[in-house]
Amino acid sequence: QAKMKIRKPKWNIRASEMSRKTFNPIRAIVDSMNVEPNPSKNMIALSIGDPTIFGNLPTDDNVLQAMKEAIDSTKFNGYAPAIGYQKSREAVSNFYSCPEAPLDAKDVILTSGCSQAIELAIAVLCNPGQNILVPRPGFSLYKTLAVSMGIDVKLYNLLPEKSWEVDLKHLELLIDDKTGCIIVNNPSNPCGSVFSKSHLQKIIAVASRNCTPILADEIYAEMVFSGCKYTSVASLSTDVPILSCGGLAKRWLVPGWRMGWILIHDRKNVFGNEIREGLVRLSQRILGPCTIVQGALEAIINKTPQEFYVNTISFLKSNSDICYSALSTVAGLRPIKPSGAMYLMVGINMEHFPEFESDVDFTEKLIAEQSVFCLPATCFEYPNFFRIVVTVPEDMMLEACTRIKEFCEQHYHLHTDSIIQDIV
Amino acid sequence: QAKMKIRKPKWNIRASEMSRKTFNPIRAIVDSMNVEPNPSKNMIALSIGDPTIFGNLPTDDNVLQAMKEAIDSTKFNGYAPAIGYQKSREAVSNFYSCPEAPLDAKDVILTSGCSQAIELAIAVLCNPGQNILVPRPGFSLYKTLAVSMGIDVKLYNLLPEKSWEVDLKHLELLIDDKTGCIIVNNPSNPCGSVFSKSHLQKIIAVASRNCTPILADEIYAEMVFSGCKYTSVASLSTDVPILSCGGLAKRWLVPGWRMGWILIHDRKNVFGNEIREGLVRLSQRILGPCTIVQGALEAIINKTPQEFYVNTISFLKSNSDICYSALSTVAGLRPIKPSGAMYLMVGINMEHFPEFESDVDFTEKLIAEQSVFCLPATCFEYPNFFRIVVTVPEDMMLEACTRIKEFCEQHYHLHTDSIIQDIV
Ligand SMILES: Cc1ncc(COP(=O)(O)O)c(C=O)c1O
Ligand SMILES: Cc1ncc(COP(=O)(O)O)c(C=O)c1O
Repeated sequence: QAKMKIRKPKWNIRASEMSRKTFNPIRAIVDSMNVEPNPSKNMIALSIGDPTIFGNLPTDDNVLQAMKEAIDSTKFNGYAPAIGYQKSREAVSNFYSCPEAPLDAKDVILTSGCSQAIELAIAVLCNPGQNILVPRPGFSLYKTLAVSMGIDVKLYNLLPEKSWEVDLKHLELLIDDKTGCIIVNNPSNPCGSVFSKSHLQKIIAVASRNCTPILADEIYAEMVFSGCKYTSVASLSTDVPILSCGGLAKRWLVPGWRMGWILIHDRKNVFGNEIREGLVRLSQRILGPCTIVQGALEAIINKTPQEFYVNTISFLKSNSDICYSALSTVAGLRPIKPSGAMYLMVGINMEHFPEFESDVDFTEKLIAEQSVFCLPATCFEYPNFFRIVVTVPEDMMLEACTRIKEFCEQHYHLHTDSIIQDIV
Repeated sequence: QAKMKIRKPKWNIRASEMSRKTFNPIRAIVDSMNVEPNPSKNMIALSIGDPTIFGNLPTDDNVLQAMKEAIDSTKFNGYAPAIGYQKSREAVSNFYSCPEAPLDAKDVILTSGCSQAIELAIAVLCNPGQNILVPRPGFSLYKTLAVSMGIDVKLYNLLPEKSWEVDLKHLELLIDDKTGCIIVNNPSNPCGSVFSKSHLQKIIAVASRNCTPILADEIYAEMVFSGCKYTSVASLSTDVPILSCGGLAKRWLVPGWRMGWILIHDRKNVFGNEIREGLVRLSQRILGPCTIVQGALEAIINKTPQEFYVNTISFLKSNSDICYSALSTVAGLRPIKPSGAMYLMVGINMEHFPEFESDVDFTEKLIAEQSVFCLPATCFEYPNFFRIVVTVPEDMMLEACTRIKEFCEQHYHLHTDSIIQDIV
């Protein structure tokens, strides 16, 4: 063989920039929390947004049955269209269609979880160098995905004193000519908040005035407590085009199955064919979610009894009431009452806990002393808060609250400023 | 409300460049083939690389059983680690580990199909502006993914006269200091070729000399006909780091289930932690494949009887023999004998078919007249060939060959050059 010029004389392989920029803040913060739980107390993890881990919230039997029937039929082993089976997309569109925001099978793209729905939605709407508007506090995946694609993230404030409503002025101020979309997450992770119809209308008005599409992360759709009503963003919009991302993960309690979807709402044809075709093309990269789940989807959606949803929600409400009441009595903490989803945010009055440098430090010591693990809200770009997941069994919830209370009592200091304030 | 400056006075939403650059040539070519099949003949599609569509190649009962047990256990409904359950990764590593290329659970990343395995492998190894080397003819996804990420594609030639071996000189000439990896697809789609051990060693030598990693697309691993032996690239390499991509799709005949994997082979620690961590980070974007399939994976891999694999292969060999023999007798065609996978490439001696402009034109007319659909190999960057999928039932295979023969006889012209050649 002829001698050839060696073009690369040495091994020198680096991971791509994109992989290095794919940064999950929760992982980074949690992995750096080098702390052992108190060996004399069993660990209670209130940190994981997975409703299945304690076994107290099983999915409905009809859901499992639908899966087994899909397997037995042997009709769902081959490739589906990249955007999903027509029938499965029809089932989703029928389920979510409403007079104000009608949907058709062609408006549905099935994805590998809501995560991929969000990925495709951002990827089709934004070029590198553009920006997206993301709630603070907010689910960390938005930033992880955007940054890895070279898209900037601008954080708009949610207001705890207004049950986490959007600071509308702040939102509008952040919009510029490079804004690709506004992400609206309702109900919210990590806040557990649910926007009223009129508040959603105001958000839509901002988007409309500024001709900016909305990416609605509605994975917790309908998961709202009694007395509160869920409204989809799309049902209120007449002109703003909306990509609504959802999936089976939370409402049907099967996050591992990775079934998500994008609902395309574009009644004024602002997206036009381009965005639709772009989404179809992007879906061809990895060819959609598991066909067994797709095959079961129609039955999952249509056969799950109303009772199942109601029971899930009343459990979540009961637990969140327990937690909110218990922590409301703890000096130095400020829980914000949730109205839906599976979370509750708790403010830490840091000046009363001078031993702790930050929410990360606070939650670390809470593990070390009380074996209770809550996520510091720095994970959601919101320091001085922590997030509690309310899907754990009731006795765990109670025990955890007792321990958090004990922890706070042991570390609470009356701060001079507040003494003065108390006097004044 | 205060009047605010309207930053975007008009709706003007364009699909991102990335989505516009995500281009599937098969879709583009097939969609532009505006042709009706002959209404008097039933359609025979030899075009789709999905072994399940005709129902003649069901997966093994143990595979279905494993899935149902995973569902019944209710242990696999929650989130798995983004790279997959430890147990499932262990099952894969045990299955593919061999003394020459040992694997451990930590060397396995589970993905949403082999397609996502390839996507992550390219995404971790290459930055925009770099290039990858891709076989011609070759599976179109490599280019689709690379181009959408701003990575260039250089095509290295496979040689039909040498049973589609790599033109090694051409391969080596294409390597430059921007080459991120060499993609080796063995057994091959669309060729059905299987590389010998010694040929693979020569490919590895090129990679080694030029310090370039290999992305081995081994989705058709072990799918080789009797008399031929499959060798994994990794089992022959001592220094070249290899990402081997595979999955359940083809060998277990369940492409819709979207279960794939990356096997990291890096015995000299050339990739180091960086590539491993990069892959982990990338996997966190959409959180892995469906947990039910993950939960079933150990049983699928370990309980599928040898007989099942043997039967699949002998069916594929029998059909490919039928097809090869039949088309070998057709003037103007040159089938290349395959040794594995599910495909057979057929050369079209275009000078004998002066009516047809191209392989696309040829296959279009074959649909119009004979209702037989083969993919023009322009889809694989290889004009003047077409690809036949040999997974169809035997009677269809026979009937299709008869029709192709008739079609060729009706359109064959003795070309002057070849007459002269025949005389000489
Ligand atoms: C707000 C929000 N969006 C999206 C997701 C991701 O959903 P999936 O598991 O379907 O990818 C989550 C998961 O926790 C979430 O909280
Ligand atoms: C060579 C090759 N690689 C990868 C794939 C994709 O496999 P999967 O369906 O697991 O994504 C295919 C599918 O046809 C293929 O032929």
